[in-house]
Order: sequence, then structure tokens, then C-alpha cells
Amino acid sequence: MNKNEVAKVVIVGGGLVGALNACFMAKRGYDVYIFEKREDIRKADEAQGKSINLALSHRGRKALKFIGLEEEILNNAVPMKGRLLHDLNGYKKSVPYDPVFKKCIYSIGRNFLNGKLLEAAEKYRNVKIYFKYKLINIGLSEGRVSFLNVEKNETVEFQADLIIGADGAFSKIRRFMETTPLFEYSQTYIEHGYLELCIPKEQSHLMKSNHLHIWPRGEFMMIALPNKDNSWTVTLFMPFKMFESIKTEADLLNFFSKTFSDSIELIGSKELITDYFKKKPSSLISVKCSPYHYKNKFLLLGDAAHAIVPFYGQGMNAGFEDCTILDNILNENKDNFKLSLQNYSIKRKANTYAISDLAMYNYVEMRDLVTRPSYSLRNLLDSLLFRFFCNTWIPLYNSVSFSEMDYLKCVENRKWQDKVIQVVIAVLGIILGIFLYYYLL
Amino acid sequence: MNKNEVAKVVIVGGGLVGALNACFMAKRGYDVYIFEKREDIRKADEAQGKSINLALSHRGRKALKFIGLEEEILNNAVPMKGRLLHDLNGYKKSVPYDPVFKKCIYSIGRNFLNGKLLEAAEKYRNVKIYFKYKLINIGLSEGRVSFLNVEKNETVEFQADLIIGADGAFSKIRRFMETTPLFEYSQTYIEHGYLELCIPKEQSHLMKSNHLHIWPRGEFMMIALPNKDNSWTVTLFMPFKMFESIKTEADLLNFFSKTFSDSIELIGSKELITDYFKKKPSSLISVKCSPYHYKNKFLLLGDAAHAIVPFYGQGMNAGFEDCTILDNILNENKDNFKLSLQNYSIKRKANTYAISDLAMYNYVEMRDLVTRPSYSLRNLLDSLLFRFFCNTWIPLYNSVSFSEMDYLKCVENRKWQDKVIQVVIAVLGIILGIFLYYYLL
Repeated sequence: MNKNEVAKVVIVGGGLVGALNACFMAKRGYDVYIFEKREDIRKADEAQGKSINLALSHRGRKALKFIGLEEEILNNAVPMKGRLLHDLNGYKKSVPYDPVFKKCIYSIGRNFLNGKLLEAAEKYRNVKIYFKYKLINIGLSEGRVSFLNVEKNETVEFQADLIIGADGAFSKIRRFMETTPLFEYSQTYIEHGYLELCIPKEQSHLMKSNHLHIWPRGEFMMIALPNKDNSWTVTLFMPFKMFESIKTEADLLNFFSKTFSDSIELIGSKELITDYFKKKPSSLISVKCSPYHYKNKFLLLGDAAHAIVPFYGQGMNAGFEDCTILDNILNENKDNFKLSLQNYSIKRKANTYAISDLAMYNYVEMRDLVTRPSYSLRNLLDSLLFRFFCNTWIPLYNSVSFSEMDYLKCVENRKWQDKVIQVVIAVLGIILGIFLYYYLL
Repeated sequence: MNKNEVAKVVIVGGGLVGALNACFMAKRGYDVYIFEKREDIRKADEAQGKSINLALSHRGRKALKFIGLEEEILNNAVPMKGRLLHDLNGYKKSVPYDPVFKKCIYSIGRNFLNGKLLEAAEKYRNVKIYFKYKLINIGLSEGRVSFLNVEKNETVEFQADLIIGADGAFSKIRRFMETTPLFEYSQTYIEHGYLELCIPKEQSHLMKSNHLHIWPRGEFMMIALPNKDNSWTVTLFMPFKMFESIKTEADLLNFFSKTFSDSIELIGSKELITDYFKKKPSSLISVKCSPYHYKNKFLLLGDAAHAIVPFYGQGMNAGFEDCTILDNILNENKDNFKLSLQNYSIKRKANTYAISDLAMYNYVEMRDLVTRPSYSLRNLLDSLLFRFFCNTWIPLYNSVSFSEMDYLKCVENRKWQDKVIQVVIAVLGIILGIFLYYYLL
């Protein structure tokens, strides 16, 4: 590319990260072409097999702010200030995410957000979006991509200076990169699947607002996120084996009345039966790979680079942060793609691996640990220390959700905090021992 | 398939495991079709990018014996009774693999063995081998495979009752299976590459025969395996960065005279320079996946299922053992493919994962630990205990190389042996302490 030529960027995938990244790239002055295999989501009837609402937090907000969309999105989202835990007896307990600064995460509809992002991208003169264009081939060495227009059954070939794979957890671009030398790759599925149910807006008065509701049951759990129309999207996470063991309507009602009894009234038993047996549970994939780029031509962003399990609410936020970080690196390297892509892969790997592991860990926290006294005690201690040393003692959840601290740093922070607490407990134990010794003898 | 019909088995890949498995399947009475993308290796000039000799041990021998080929292969192999360690000063030390029963591993040429296996397969009337047939497509649900005859440029489609992917570390069959639900997959490359050199037969008198020679240098190493014609195949394993840092002939000779000084005379400095700069170092991939089958139609064997790093000399042996185990499971399940494939995946996964991890660990042992006194001491202790309790205390190397114990069991054995030794050392320490206390006071 000559210095005076405008870089041509192809983005494969017009989902959340693809559409957002198009805005970032357009702001840089590049010519951007989005190819999306599905129809325009704004014209589609229903979400396609993906969880229909998401938790937006700091990293995501920052990227939206950059393209001037934060306010509009927040106005259409529902703030969640904490978890609301439902126990077996229907007793509820609120656990705020940030007792000190009262920060919230925001429940937002996937399709709404995607639509807004496409709308924002379209506003740039230098962005073109092609729907129903399916990627069929890649020339890795030449930086060439071929698409099939599924409507006209025509093939288009496209050459670009930069090809961005924002084509999701089952990324085709990544599949091509898998065969390149020294490409690290792993895909794992957890043994749990998920199924979506619904609490209609008519029952909304029974649900404490502005919370992410959780029914933690040790080996499995159910959660509910609020929608703007006052309905709630409920997601049941369980081992596939448990799903399979529920075969009849009676099995289902029996299981729910034993484990989620207070939810039957909320969902409605008829609707529960219909929704439960309508679909098979979906699986949850976790993908790690490295590097994210191939030569100075290809780059993976979002789920294509690091699909993670949804339990930290960071999948979308990490993907949006990818866009921010890439933009910074392009600034630092004055739009030199070769250097930028190399730096991006190096900088991003450890952090996305860290959030991937954290997301796995958080499933155990959400479905099990939250119910334990040790968890509440630690939470209390974290909040206290955070209140007094808000620049030093940042609890893990805060640093992940309400800051832009490197994910790896968040994990490392937690490690030294754990150590400090262990030492303090040991010292307190010794003092108590000495005290008892003198007092009792 | 009706009970009276003969099962049609397609084997993709006519390498070591594919050809061997064809013999196993033919012995069962199935109609077997091997499709190999390369030309007949017996007509080819040179090995193609793979290490040219291999270490055959018990598991591989057992499979060869089953098809009546063990004796012929051993007659054409060179026994290696132990490692011969070369230190920096050229001082050599022999460390036998099995000081008690004197068992050996056998160095065998890859191409020779492959040729013999193809020959053996061809002797069965119900085996047909097609060379230069490249797999181009798979119908996973229908059990269909399409090949391109690269000579005639013709496409052939084939339907089979069972399709075996014995198509190596970069298996195409596995790539198709990767997209099936819940398929676990990981590929990693170690940071070390390898390069092959040669000690000509004229220098053979300087090499102690019947050993696997090692030049262990901590972070890297060089090894030499004997060939039947008295030459030795030398393999240099080093971090890619080290390979890259050697840019000129002077760099190379300087490096060799510092680290492998006694080898320069053996290889010849001119030949060293030619061979070193002729090729780029090759990479080493490690692949894990699960399950190994898809429905009752597809099955991965050998490197396609579990490519491992070469440091335990178990890659081929594990692949050959796959054939033995599959055969046993087909017997147990009376040729019911559905049950057999399911059982095979369950039975084999933990064991191949175990040998994969062991092979990674053994690189550290070969290049570094072997030089330490603690290693020699442990070796001595293991041999002593093995001599007295040969059914109970089987050292790790013995169980892996000279038995058919499940790989996982080998690892577990090693773990309890480690614990016993730790306890014994602790007890001895205490006794010594008590003794010194009474003696000195």
C-alpha cells in the first residue's frame, strides 16, 4: 500500500464486534467492507441461537463511547446493581457488585445493540455492508477472500490490505489460520449446556428490579436478566446429563418445584413446559488461540479469537476492548499493519487467556460459592478494604467489570490479595492463641 | 450393514498406522481400501519431511507380531540397549534402559517399515491400495469420502461402513470432525524445532554400537540413532531462536565446537555445514482430541488422533497399539461398529493423553535431567527395587517401553513410587537424626 492510498479493510462478520470494529476502522479513514453471512439482523424476526441479552460493563462502554453510542445504548439498557440470590426456600438476598461506588452492569438486548452498531457503521461514508455473503475461501498468502452471495448464488472475490475475522466462535478465518505454522489452538466444551426461558412482563412486579437474579444450586444454576420491556430472560445452566434426565412434563415440573420452586409462578408452568421442550440445550465452547494475526493481512477479533464461557459477562466486553486496543496500537505504530498486528497478538494473548480462565472459574462462583459463608465474608472484607484503599485494594470483580486494567493484572492482583488475607488470618490466629494462653492460664 | 454382508472399510492414509491397520482389518475379514495421497513409498526416493528412523518397543512389536511381521522387522532393526550420554568434554557414559532384564528398543527405518507394512497389507486378497489419491471431501453424516486422483485428475466418491482416519498429525478427517458438536481439540507446538544430520558409516567405528546416543545440554540436545547400514541419523533439537541465531558457517562450527565438540569428527565439518543449511528446522506438534470417533462411521487412529512429541519414542508404538486395542474391542463387541467406536474412544482417551504428557516431560529428562546426580540415584534405586520386586516396582521407562500396561497406569505407578521414595527418605532422615542425637550427645 502506498502512503497516499487508503487502506482497504474487509471485516468478515457483521455481529457485535464486526460492526463496532467497522466504526473504529472507518474513523481511522480506512475503506471498510463488512461481509455478513446472515440477513440484516434489523430485518430478522428472531435472534439465531445465541443468548438474547448481555451484560455491558466498563470495557464495552468505553468502546461504545469512542464511537459516540454509549449514551443511547445505556438509555436502552437496564442497570443491574448486584446479584439477587434465590435460595431453595425462595428466600432472597441482594449482593451488590460494587458496594462502594455503586457501579452497575447493564443488561442489553443483543439484537438491539447489533442493530444500533450496524446503523452507526452505515453512517460512515467509507463503510459498506454486504449481507448474505458467506465466506467460502481464503488466500492466506495473497490476502484474498471469496464470498458467496447466497441470494444471487454469485461468487465475489476480494483483495484487501487487512482482513479482520470477526466471525464468531466458529470462525472460518480462524479455521484457515489453524493450518499455518506454529498456530496454537484449543477448543473445549464444558459439560454443561444452557436453555433459555422467559418471565413475562406481567410477572415483573414479583421480581426485584435492577438485579441479575441467580438461583445457585451447586452443580447447576438458573439466572435471569431484565429486558427493557419489563420481561426477563431466564437461562438454565445444567450438565447435559441432567437435561437428558428430564424426559416428561411431570419430570420437569417435579424438578422445578424441588429446585427452583419460586420460579414456577414467575415463568408460568405451561410456558415453562413449552419453552423447555421446544429446543435442545445449547453447548458452551471455549476457544483459545495464538497468534491472532497471520502475516500483515489477517487478524482475529472477538469470539473468533477468544470465545469464552459467559459466566463473567465479559465475552462481548472483551471483544469490544479488542477494538479499543487495536486502535491504540495502530496509533502507536502509525497505521503500520505489520507491526500493529504483531504487537496486538503479543499484548492481547495473556489477557484474553486470563479472562477465559476467569470466566470458567466464575461459573463455580455463581452456581456454588456465592451460597457459602466464606464467600460473603470475603466479599465484606474486600468491600471494606476497597473503601479505605480504593486505589490499591481493588476487588477482582471490580477490576474486571469496572476498570480497564489488563485482565492478567486483575488476576495477579487477586493472587496477592489472597496471600495478604492468608497472612492476616495466620497472624490473627497467633494473636488469639497468645491472648487465650495468657487469659486462661 | 446386514449380518451376512462384509463390512467395507476405507482407510485414509497408507503410512505406518494406516498400512498396519489394514492388515488388522483384513484379518477380521473386512473389505479394506487404503487411499494414500503420496506415491507408493517403496518407489519414492526419499522420506518426505519426517524423521527417518524410529524406536520400536513392546507395544509396536506386539502389533507387528499379530500380523506375523515382528521377526522380519527385528532382523532389519538395530537394538539399542541404553542411552549413551556424551558430556561437554566428550566423556561418555552408558545408561541401560533395562539393567535387570536387558530389554532393548529397536531403531528401524521409517520407509523400510512402511514398505514392509504395505507389502503385508497387499498380501491380503481383501485389501486394495490406491496411491496418489488425495482426500478432498467428507460427508460426515452419510459416511462418504471423495478423493482426487492427482495423476488422472479424477474424482472418486466412496461410501463405506467404517472410515478410518490414519492420515497423520495434520489429519483432514480430524479437521472435518473438529466442527462436530462437543469435539475437544487442541494443537500446540513446542518452542523447539529439529534438524536431521548424519554420521556416515565410515565413522561408525567411533560410535559405541547398540545405543541411542545423546548429547544433553540442558536447554537443547542432540541425539543419534543407528541405521542398519552402520550410518547414524543425528537429530538436533533446539529452540527455534537458537537455530535462527546460527547464521553463518563460522557461527555453526563455533557453536558445535563449544557444545558438541566430539561430534564434529563424527559428522564431518563439511557435511555438517551442508546438511545444517540445506533445510529449515521442522516444528514439533502435539495434538489432543476427543472423542476419536464420529457416530458409527469415522475413527481416528495414530497421529491423527494423538500426535505427540517424539521424546519418549512412543508415537509409532502408541499408534500401533491403537490397532491392537481396536481389534480387541471389535472382538468384545462382535464387530458392532457403534459400540466398538464408543468404547474405543472412552478407553483410549486417558491413555493417549497420558503418553502425550509423558512425551513432553521426557524432553526435559533427555536434554537436562539425565545429567544430574539425582537422576542417576533414582535410576539406581528403581533398578534395585525392580530386581527384587519385578511385578510390583516397575520403573516408568520399563512400563512404558517394555510392557503393555495402560499408559495412564504407568503414570499412576510412577506417582505412588515417588511417594514411597519420599516417605522412605523422610524416615531415613529421622532415623539418622535420632542416631546422631544419641551418638553426639
